[in-house]
Amino acid sequence: MAVRHYTLDFKLSAPADHSATVRGLQSIFQEQEMTETVHDTEGHGYLATFIGKNGRFAILRLLSQGLVTFDLQCCEGDDLAQVDSLLNALETKLNILLHGTIQRVKRLPALQRGGEVDRYWPTADGRLIEYDIDEVVFDKDSAYQNIKILHSQQFGNILILNGDVNLSESDLPYTQAIMGNGREHYAGKEILILGGGDGGILCEAVKLKPKMITMMVIDACRTHMRKTCGNVLDNLKGDCYEVLVEDCVPILKKFVEEGRTFDYVINDLTAIPISTAPEEESTWEFLRLILDLSIKVLRPTGKYFSQGNCVNLTEALSEYEGLLRKLSCKVDFSKEVVCVPSYLELWMFYTVWKK
Amino acid sequence: MAVRHYTLDFKLSAPADHSATVRGLQSIFQEQEMTETVHDTEGHGYLATFIGKNGRFAILRLLSQGLVTFDLQCCEGDDLAQVDSLLNALETKLNILLHGTIQRVKRLPALQRGGEVDRYWPTADGRLIEYDIDEVVFDKDSAYQNIKILHSQQFGNILILNGDVNLSESDLPYTQAIMGNGREHYAGKEILILGGGDGGILCEAVKLKPKMITMMVIDACRTHMRKTCGNVLDNLKGDCYEVLVEDCVPILKKFVEEGRTFDYVINDLTAIPISTAPEEESTWEFLRLILDLSIKVLRPTGKYFSQGNCVNLTEALSEYEGLLRKLSCKVDFSKEVVCVPSYLELWMFYTVWKK
Repeated sequence: MAVRHYTLDFKLSAPADHSATVRGLQSIFQEQEMTETVHDTEGHGYLATFIGKNGRFAILRLLSQGLVTFDLQCCEGDDLAQVDSLLNALETKLNILLHGTIQRVKRLPALQRGGEVDRYWPTADGRLIEYDIDEVVFDKDSAYQNIKILHSQQFGNILILNGDVNLSESDLPYTQAIMGNGREHYAGKEILILGGGDGGILCEAVKLKPKMITMMVIDACRTHMRKTCGNVLDNLKGDCYEVLVEDCVPILKKFVEEGRTFDYVINDLTAIPISTAPEEESTWEFLRLILDLSIKVLRPTGKYFSQGNCVNLTEALSEYEGLLRKLSCKVDFSKEVVCVPSYLELWMFYTVWKK
Repeated sequence: MAVRHYTLDFKLSAPADHSATVRGLQSIFQEQEMTETVHDTEGHGYLATFIGKNGRFAILRLLSQGLVTFDLQCCEGDDLAQVDSLLNALETKLNILLHGTIQRVKRLPALQRGGEVDRYWPTADGRLIEYDIDEVVFDKDSAYQNIKILHSQQFGNILILNGDVNLSESDLPYTQAIMGNGREHYAGKEILILGGGDGGILCEAVKLKPKMITMMVIDACRTHMRKTCGNVLDNLKGDCYEVLVEDCVPILKKFVEEGRTFDYVINDLTAIPISTAPEEESTWEFLRLILDLSIKVLRPTGKYFSQGNCVNLTEALSEYEGLLRKLSCKVDFSKEVVCVPSYLELWMFYTVWKK
């Protein structure tokens, strides 16, 4: 069961004449055999609702400051050509009735509500985005998070963790960015990857002949993100890599105790929190802990790479940079804006090194 | 005057118990002093509308096949924290009332309807996309089209022609793609640019020391797309370029008559039509004409570059490829998928040459 929700809005330079507009539209609603209810809005303009056949439901609002909104909901299986022609008739008629005062006419693609496949995955900065998702490939709750892999017509499979778009099979630019965009020489080096369970970083890094890569894994990606991880996740141990299925904090602490160090630490665990609100506090604490431990296992000439967040979240990015400046071990950093195809927003990446 | 439109949907594995659910929510609506109207849906589930203070308007639908939808519209200037807490209360209560049958809870970012700035610019394949537009920089109708330049927080100024996102100041990848992505040697060559009025191609091409570039221009971009065009549009004639403010078909015909030829023809006039429906027929005709004339002015070793459209519009792309195969002068072609940052969808580009 799904509902298609259409909107049609007229932004006006002057309020619409209620009675003339309503009278002008009457024949359209009558023709559609829709039952009208006019509501008392207590001075907030004209508002009528209409019940039609097949579960159709419409709302007409004439707001006092020059805005006419129309909503039409219809159920799955309804005759979409008929629905379109109703909307066309209304748009044409309103163009005539409101002539001379129209500043903008806006008819959005219909919202698909309650469908089998969820196509709406907002950006990190909270904008409404409809993806071309056509299939749920995988959907499971792990001990830590909800893991979804959805198929996008253009991006291939997309990994979505707790509702956040994480990586698609078209997102090589993400992997390249978090590895320094070709500016680093990984040959013969020791690399620690925190997270990165989709295997993308590992897959690219093994091509560069490093001495040893240590990382951890999410199992779903091995099967469903093959274009990203290739076959590197098929075995947990390769010539130059080892995958640990463990929490990274105890491992990092153990490395610090043992005095084990790395040339590169790539933190692909999570984006920085989008706010500094109390409910995000524990994420910031976690981030601080990971940063601190990572810098401790970094060699003096080593580099630490991580993603930041959407470039629009300037406060969160400043907070992160403040955190970097206050680390017990003094560091410098650089940042870079990258277009990750499936994110549909520009993303910030950081490189951090010891002073 | 703008309206914020919130949606909150529960997808269920079984129909909701109407009377228990409605009874369970009653106290929330009463607390908000909302006046309820229950509508007769003629067997299409439960539907109630609610009029609240400040022009607030809500709709609760319990559809028979297991979907509960809630809509809340509020007017500009309303107390958004209060609106949020109403939605939170409803979500919490519905989570309790529908416990055990919930498959998905979806609360989308609010639609902003009738606002000063229009943030919704659908993709070529018809998906709903909200941009981070915060300012209308330019908005005018020319003899040919509506020209808008809107400011995006992350992409800089965006050129929108007749409602289609054309180019943003972050879209160097578009310009690079339509010039062959670094695979061509432009030094000493003669180049013809059809369209490209934003100046992006011209700006990149002059850096490559060509013999001569011939193109045409839209005036608005010179002022508002400086990051794209630099200063190349400040004069209509430079050392190695000439900008013609004329229709391209008569010019192309004149070039054919005169026997004038070029090493590169870059068609940046328009994307290929998204459908083969009758109303698009004239665009296809125009495209065929431009293609035919362009190939005629192309030297035997020359190349013709153009954009295609969104990769998802496979039928339109096939139609275009069919057109290429049927040209009077036999050609071969290659294609390339490119991520243009502000498009929020992957885009196809074509390279065409004489057989």
